[in-house]
Amino acid sequence: MKESLTDKVTSLAKRRGFYWQAYEAYGGVGGFYVLGDLGTKLKDNIVRLWKKMFLDKYGFIEIESPTIGPYVVFEASGHVGSFKDAMSECLKCHNKYRADHLLAEQGIQVSESTRLDVLEHLMNENKILCPECRQSSWRVTAFLTMFQTNIGPYSENIGFLRPETAQGMFVEFKQIYESNRGKMPLGVAQIGKAYRNEISPRQGLIRLREFSQIELEFFFNPNNNSCEYLHQVDDIKMNILDEKKVARGDEIPYRLSAKEAIDKGYIIQPWLAFFMALSQKFLNELGVKSEFQRFKAKLEGERAHYSAQTYDQEVLTEKYGWIEVAGHAYRQDYDLKSHTLKGSIDMYVVEELKEPMREKKTLAYVNSKRVKDEFNGKASEIFVEISKYDPKTLAQKLNEVGKIELEGVVLGREYFTLKEVEETISTRKFIPHVVEPSFGIERIICATLEHAYSERENRVILSLKEDIAPYKFAVFPLVKKDGLDEKAKEVFNMIKAEGISVLYDDDGSIGRRYARVDEIGVPNAITIDYQTLEDDTVTVRKRDTWDQNRVKISEVLKT
Amino acid sequence: MKESLTDKVTSLAKRRGFYWQAYEAYGGVGGFYVLGDLGTKLKDNIVRLWKKMFLDKYGFIEIESPTIGPYVVFEASGHVGSFKDAMSECLKCHNKYRADHLLAEQGIQVSESTRLDVLEHLMNENKILCPECRQSSWRVTAFLTMFQTNIGPYSENIGFLRPETAQGMFVEFKQIYESNRGKMPLGVAQIGKAYRNEISPRQGLIRLREFSQIELEFFFNPNNNSCEYLHQVDDIKMNILDEKKVARGDEIPYRLSAKEAIDKGYIIQPWLAFFMALSQKFLNELGVKSEFQRFKAKLEGERAHYSAQTYDQEVLTEKYGWIEVAGHAYRQDYDLKSHTLKGSIDMYVVEELKEPMREKKTLAYVNSKRVKDEFNGKASEIFVEISKYDPKTLAQKLNEVGKIELEGVVLGREYFTLKEVEETISTRKFIPHVVEPSFGIERIICATLEHAYSERENRVILSLKEDIAPYKFAVFPLVKKDGLDEKAKEVFNMIKAEGISVLYDDDGSIGRRYARVDEIGVPNAITIDYQTLEDDTVTVRKRDTWDQNRVKISEVLKT
Repeated sequence: MKESLTDKVTSLAKRRGFYWQAYEAYGGVGGFYVLGDLGTKLKDNIVRLWKKMFLDKYGFIEIESPTIGPYVVFEASGHVGSFKDAMSECLKCHNKYRADHLLAEQGIQVSESTRLDVLEHLMNENKILCPECRQSSWRVTAFLTMFQTNIGPYSENIGFLRPETAQGMFVEFKQIYESNRGKMPLGVAQIGKAYRNEISPRQGLIRLREFSQIELEFFFNPNNNSCEYLHQVDDIKMNILDEKKVARGDEIPYRLSAKEAIDKGYIIQPWLAFFMALSQKFLNELGVKSEFQRFKAKLEGERAHYSAQTYDQEVLTEKYGWIEVAGHAYRQDYDLKSHTLKGSIDMYVVEELKEPMREKKTLAYVNSKRVKDEFNGKASEIFVEISKYDPKTLAQKLNEVGKIELEGVVLGREYFTLKEVEETISTRKFIPHVVEPSFGIERIICATLEHAYSERENRVILSLKEDIAPYKFAVFPLVKKDGLDEKAKEVFNMIKAEGISVLYDDDGSIGRRYARVDEIGVPNAITIDYQTLEDDTVTVRKRDTWDQNRVKISEVLKT
Repeated sequence: MKESLTDKVTSLAKRRGFYWQAYEAYGGVGGFYVLGDLGTKLKDNIVRLWKKMFLDKYGFIEIESPTIGPYVVFEASGHVGSFKDAMSECLKCHNKYRADHLLAEQGIQVSESTRLDVLEHLMNENKILCPECRQSSWRVTAFLTMFQTNIGPYSENIGFLRPETAQGMFVEFKQIYESNRGKMPLGVAQIGKAYRNEISPRQGLIRLREFSQIELEFFFNPNNNSCEYLHQVDDIKMNILDEKKVARGDEIPYRLSAKEAIDKGYIIQPWLAFFMALSQKFLNELGVKSEFQRFKAKLEGERAHYSAQTYDQEVLTEKYGWIEVAGHAYRQDYDLKSHTLKGSIDMYVVEELKEPMREKKTLAYVNSKRVKDEFNGKASEIFVEISKYDPKTLAQKLNEVGKIELEGVVLGREYFTLKEVEETISTRKFIPHVVEPSFGIERIICATLEHAYSERENRVILSLKEDIAPYKFAVFPLVKKDGLDEKAKEVFNMIKAEGISVLYDDDGSIGRRYARVDEIGVPNAITIDYQTLEDDTVTVRKRDTWDQNRVKISEVLKT
């Protein structure tokens, strides 16, 4: 079988130190990887480019919040309830696997919302074999895929490793918003670790238990959701598979700009469309051409619990087919609302209206006579409790749930008088809505390497764009004597002094040195030879074309 | 009581979004902090400066390894056995505290190696009151301060959140070394999260459960430990409290250069001394003057289990006194040796000798006749097992433990013939030794902010060095009309296009805007006024002197 590009990249990555599986000295632990020198530099460069394109240009900001959070936070966020995988346990050998993966290997596709009992039935009825003991007797249960731990010495203080960086921006929203002087809309990013305790991860860097995310939570006023930057991405045509296409299995995408996709109703929030287009451009800048990218809608049952619309941004790979490198979700006010309900800080924002508005609203006032008559001695206590609510909130509650619950007393509609009023308002409270582009850095690294990889005359060339190449220059003395090495060191130090990443190699033939730097993506290799000593010129050789030019040392950085 | 500088910094940090306690919406969780926009930018700048000073200049490299590790790694590293705090539990209310902290609050200093029974005795005998219930009946036990979790769905697969980034460099050493083409000495850094499940953390950003480290593991050949860069730090005089001074409570430090400290025997490894001096310079560059820094040796009983010598690098703060911002340890070959013993990959490195050497060694050969006579049918099995060892290793083992243990058989010295030989060798195997400078980023942020903080005319000035200031420039239009705002935006965009961090503020009086940028450390504030429209000049106002100069727009970046 021909080795896939994906596998070739994996083996190059290990050999040259981009990345490799962690803990090999202890037999390896699935789902954990190490980035080496080259991987770290590549990641840094990718992150720097992202910050430039998504933060600096728009004045959005970055925060860093803890990777460990207390139980209540992930209960409020819905993860304790929803962040689960269906786990099939072999009743013979007790090995455990993801039910959907085992079924998919036998050609039985199930959705993420398939019920556990249905999965168990499918596993047993189809006699799915246990990969370990080849029996086929299964129990399917839900496995919480957050890593659990204890905070401090009390066993009741359960904490989780965050499954996404996003909750940091939500839980801390009020403080971020205030220290940023009340700016709205507000883009807040976080770049950091997230964790998913996979049942049985395979697929190398694609399915990790510990990974790095770049997430941008873009908070906006739902009453004013137009995106001022939409025209900047007019020239970007996206391959879009909307929900209808996905539902009917149609794999031929629309090709549309962000604006067109909004106009046609395929994308329901302008900012979501904007970030999708910008993200396509970001992958372009990493070297992944548009024809190898697409946006695939998640169907209602497959979407995360917080999302009203999600598009997966996918990149084509040879081994795994289309893989998700980013998710673009319209999270609405789901998270801020949940934390407002469960936590002690409300996440409302007050909007100053440009022009005062007439607003109709319903107010509810307690019928004091009736309360006094019916509750006697308890009445004054009830009045105190009731007075904690403003009349508008009371009316809303009565409208929503038909009653007001106080300490030990429930008052129905009949205890209140409702009034319709119209008044002029100059401010309005709202919970910001959120659009979220969320990137998986390791998957982006894989996609970037695979799309940069080629072979020529049995040698590997990694055509990483200059912006993200781990080393921009290599410097070689032709030989290690006659002063060529000193001269080469001079050139090396000159480049380093400019803050440009450069490597030095004096080992083996020039041909082998070229081969070594080609496969790690160094765009420019400079050779110092005897002529250099005479006229201060060097050979600059280009990675992608293998063209060589003789230039003055003072000009090398401009090549 | 006068508010300490430390407390003033904490309140500024929260108000302006450098950092604040995490999860305030849920009452706060001790030991977890958030870095806001300014904190993240400051951290980034500090890290970038560190990389420039410690990595780029010397060609050292960076990796990123997982924050979660399996049990066996931290068992081998010694953390499962040693990474514990003495926990005192109140037998009445069952609240738990660090025993040494409660004792210290009553003026009873104990060392980190004090036995648990002694601590319990001290707690009870001195009637230390429980901070919660004011009783004084205590039990003292050891509490493992690593966060524990489960990897995957099997309860026996215990994992820990790493207590230091360092183990990543050790466990992965062989792969790093090989993908870096066998370079030695080799500096490998990691910048990332580390965790310590403190029993009851207080002290804000000083004692965290989740924090960020910069650690550099410098691997070197113990047969060749001289440091070629020592002369670069000749001009740096360090305040050193060596072990003897510490033992006798002498707080007056020596003032010595790295070379002097080595010559006098206060620092036992040249590379350790070099990194200490470089680290002092690093703190200088962050704005902490040398007189507010010192290096304090840890006594033998206080040192981590792996260390032959440790110096804490301390910075003076107003509230907490001297706090540790970095630890400089000579870890010897402790970690690589442990992983060689427990793991499946040996961490030896082969050194090519510059000149062949004569080496005497002892070889052991099995006495086959005796084995045959005594073990009969089992003999050939024994020969197979024995043949897996080379004669030199056999002789070493016999010398060290007096016997060779095979599957089910133990052979003493009497079964072997020993031979002394002398041979010429051109290579030699060794386990690299390690010197480690390890920095706590949050503590460095605190120290940096406190040493930058001052007040003048009731206003706060944060004199952060320009290199690390979150924003280098602020741009203000004098008023928001008459085209001044457009012009200001132009200047703002011009600076941004250069990749320089800049903020824009058009809110309130110029005086208030100056005050706002002074307290977050913006070194240069540019005001656009009516004259700007005429002659393209602006006012540049300096944060530290409040001096104002009129300069051409084209010159502002050179001020």
